Amino acid sequence: MRILLTNDDGILAEGLIALYEELKDDFDLSVVAPETEMSAVGHSITLSNPIRVRRMKRNGCFFGYGISGTPADCVKIAIQEILHQKPDMVISGINMGSNVGINLLYSGTVSAATEGAFLGIPSFAVSLNTKNDPDFSFPAEFSRRMITFISRNGLQEGTALNVNIPALPKSQIKGISFTRQDLVRQKDTFEKRNDPRGNSYYWLASETPVEESIPNTDLKVLQENRITITPITFDLTDLKEIERLASLGVDL
Amino acid sequence: MRILLTNDDGILAEGLIALYEELKDDFDLSVVAPETEMSAVGHSITLSNPIRVRRMKRNGCFFGYGISGTPADCVKIAIQEILHQKPDMVISGINMGSNVGINLLYSGTVSAATEGAFLGIPSFAVSLNTKNDPDFSFPAEFSRRMITFISRNGLQEGTALNVNIPALPKSQIKGISFTRQDLVRQKDTFEKRNDPRGNSYYWLASETPVEESIPNTDLKVLQENRITITPITFDLTDLKEIERLASLGVDL
Repeated sequence: MRILLTNDDGILAEGLIALYEELKDDFDLSVVAPETEMSAVGHSITLSNPIRVRRMKRNGCFFGYGISGTPADCVKIAIQEILHQKPDMVISGINMGSNVGINLLYSGTVSAATEGAFLGIPSFAVSLNTKNDPDFSFPAEFSRRMITFISRNGLQEGTALNVNIPALPKSQIKGISFTRQDLVRQKDTFEKRNDPRGNSYYWLASETPVEESIPNTDLKVLQENRITITPITFDLTDLKEIERLASLGVDL
Repeated sequence: MRILLTNDDGILAEGLIALYEELKDDFDLSVVAPETEMSAVGHSITLSNPIRVRRMKRNGCFFGYGISGTPADCVKIAIQEILHQKPDMVISGINMGSNVGINLLYSGTVSAATEGAFLGIPSFAVSLNTKNDPDFSFPAEFSRRMITFISRNGLQEGTALNVNIPALPKSQIKGISFTRQDLVRQKDTFEKRNDPRGNSYYWLASETPVEESIPNTDLKVLQENRITITPITFDLTDLKEIERLASLGVDL
């Protein structure tokens, strides 16, 4: 089984390496990932610039291809140009930090899995809910479980899975839930600062939820120390709203 | 009525200016848009860099705020930091080039409208289906029609509209359809080149559909010279797949 590994933290990020080490003896792995960190790039692709592909070493041996582009670029170029055969699965991660709620829209990690699904390959993104001192060993082990699960049960065409794992030892994880994306609204806070030359700039500092989440969302369930698995699609259409609006009509 | 105008082609792009000129006498307009072109940035936000806000002039008068960030950044910072009151509507465009099918994921134009909807503001994106010699006069006029339509009928909370307009005189436009996003798979083609120093690079050259579209999608309907209006959401959850997967179960 051929698996393409990618991420948005960069090709030499610890989370990707943990995944590689866990899987390398049992699968035919290829690594095609951004050369540098690419967080919050969303589902962007590089159109206005050339994309460089660089062979990267780790511990003196060839490890994979570092790309001067986004995670979605990596999946596209891996499949079209780098790999000789289409992979059987795409795994994006292990991301340092959760990808839940509205952050799915901004997440490079998730967009790589969505791109894989769009190209017809069963794909999942996997993220660890911590920003400090991560232990990727259980998330890597669980990723193997996900490979088995997807291989056995398949995925709806066009659907990817978004997996988030609590930063806890396995014994303290309360279980696994199939969740939906949290849609709670957030209030952004920007910090206004002055640079050393006296010019002002802003920095997006934090997002605070402004309402209660509905039950069984990725955000809520992850907070309850459960693993969340959210099936996601790249179809943005609001089908219900089509009907209502069409009945109203609009004139040229 | 207060309207925030933004885009991804840059604050001084012709399409945004056409919209501004069409609406300026009847609405309280604010312009907050990227300083430079930001196409295919998808729904990305700027986390790792400061965001600059620059007052921009046009014809010697203050025109709006140029932002060193993405369209989604523009909407966030406009609402949190720049505008004194929350706008009643966000309009993103008029984009030069259509935004249909899978390109919705990569589109900065669309992401600004989605961001507006996420922040609880009725929002739409508007794009003209041409890359050459655009005539924005009818698209600007039609945008005004959309403002009336949305003001009168409201929009489902969290839903934005994605409007695409054929590049034809009004008399040749066949009508208006409420459509869904086309989901047809594409084959990407990269061109491999050598730079003047002999290093190779790739450039994403084109995307070719590899299957037939289903009926009533934005892509198909726009090709039939009709205006397409697609209601879109930021909820990526595949609700149907949750049920199936949950019934299968997965072990820790």
